[in-house]
Amino acid sequence: MQSQGLSINLATIREQCGFAQAVDICLQHGITAIAPWREQVAAIGLNEAANIVHSNELRLTGLCRGGFFPAASFDDRQKALDDNRRAIDEAATLGADCLVLVVGGLPGGSRNLDEARKMVADGISAVLPHARQANVPLAIEPLHPMYAADRSCVNTLGQALDICELVGEGAGVAVDAYHVWWDPDLAQQVARAGQMNAILAHHICDWLVPTAHMLTDRGMMGDGVIDLPGLRRMIEAAGFHGAQEVEIFSDNWWARPAQEVIATCVGRYQACC
Amino acid sequence: MQSQGLSINLATIREQCGFAQAVDICLQHGITAIAPWREQVAAIGLNEAANIVHSNELRLTGLCRGGFFPAASFDDRQKALDDNRRAIDEAATLGADCLVLVVGGLPGGSRNLDEARKMVADGISAVLPHARQANVPLAIEPLHPMYAADRSCVNTLGQALDICELVGEGAGVAVDAYHVWWDPDLAQQVARAGQMNAILAHHICDWLVPTAHMLTDRGMMGDGVIDLPGLRRMIEAAGFHGAQEVEIFSDNWWARPAQEVIATCVGRYQACC
Repeated sequence: MQSQGLSINLATIREQCGFAQAVDICLQHGITAIAPWREQVAAIGLNEAANIVHSNELRLTGLCRGGFFPAASFDDRQKALDDNRRAIDEAATLGADCLVLVVGGLPGGSRNLDEARKMVADGISAVLPHARQANVPLAIEPLHPMYAADRSCVNTLGQALDICELVGEGAGVAVDAYHVWWDPDLAQQVARAGQMNAILAHHICDWLVPTAHMLTDRGMMGDGVIDLPGLRRMIEAAGFHGAQEVEIFSDNWWARPAQEVIATCVGRYQACC
Repeated sequence: MQSQGLSINLATIREQCGFAQAVDICLQHGITAIAPWREQVAAIGLNEAANIVHSNELRLTGLCRGGFFPAASFDDRQKALDDNRRAIDEAATLGADCLVLVVGGLPGGSRNLDEARKMVADGISAVLPHARQANVPLAIEPLHPMYAADRSCVNTLGQALDICELVGEGAGVAVDAYHVWWDPDLAQQVARAGQMNAILAHHICDWLVPTAHMLTDRGMMGDGVIDLPGLRRMIEAAGFHGAQEVEIFSDNWWARPAQEVIATCVGRYQACC
């Protein structure tokens, strides 16, 4: 089957359809692995989403997302922990392979990256017992350094793996090509992640030249400059053979029919990944 | 003097004025250190620019820029080397502290970052004898990872220092706050640069949240999230006490009168750096 090994992160067609319709379109293209976002699940209701997942025997390569741990006040940090525990429970109900963590950036008004990074490690430590009990691995997703201020102060795979070592069993990484492709230390850190048995997910899209918008101009595989097969070889050599999950934030692709987007994902996955 | 230790990279007011007028405005604000771009020098003529520099006893904290070594064809790579040798000669004529290198990204059509990075090291090696003879240090400026494809495949201070070690005497680094502030390895690499006696320049501006454009939305010091005093402390502890050079690519600041921009640079330098 041409879509074997392919997963669709539902953010890729989030502007076109809700959870149920997105699943239908994936199934029509022979795709049985997805990764939904919590707001997409919430919109249809957790029970109904779980029902769709289980009745169709879908594989969930991840639930997006937990994280956003840093906050200026103690109360807000506690609220973030509570929200992460709810996200863990949702991931367990859905049977997701992992809960993806976008860890958060600088708290408002702060210029202290070290402190934000400490808040992230502390936050993951705090919710990890709950995650272990629920049997939901936490996938720290290092985000591109251009998101250091506002989305994630964990910006390299090496840094994410350092946190995994610090917090212990139950945490791993989501390796997203878009975020890590530039890293001169990439090969070494992917190998290290393999030795740690820490690779929980592999996300793909492409880096466009030029890139018109920092968040919403990610490319379809093959339209940019990332050596996606090279990264996949590294990841498989490190022992991860799970699905490649397409996650494209793009005003361009969001403006096209979902059927066209998913058909293109399948074709490009075959040709370029 | 309030502008002691402050240098103005003339790109900061490049849309408002040419070389001679930019120098006048700097001098009016008590600023006697500048860093011009080659096209600004070419527009007035190298000899006239050198005359202005020397008659006003200006310090040139750098000439921007050499680099752009990777290219698909051998001929184009040779052309890049020739152009870098000319840039070295210009830096020598102007008495610049260093020639700043923006090393270049992926050659057109390439997805091979490793190869591009090798072309960079090879290119620097090739022009370094000329630079040593001219007594012009080459300052490798690691650029933010968001420029890896199109401007610079050297994206961390550690990577730049690895190249310095590889090519030997005559190469160092320009540390630009905008490009390196996010790096979890920053403190360690600044200290390493100090031990190597490799810090040739310190550039400043700020990272805005949100950032509207990847190239032309850099911030005035104090308007963003970079801990500029913290970075300066690291750099001084590493033994570099040269000027802080303001380099702001900004559609916003380019649209304001140059006098206002430079006055703001002086004020913010005092207040925020």
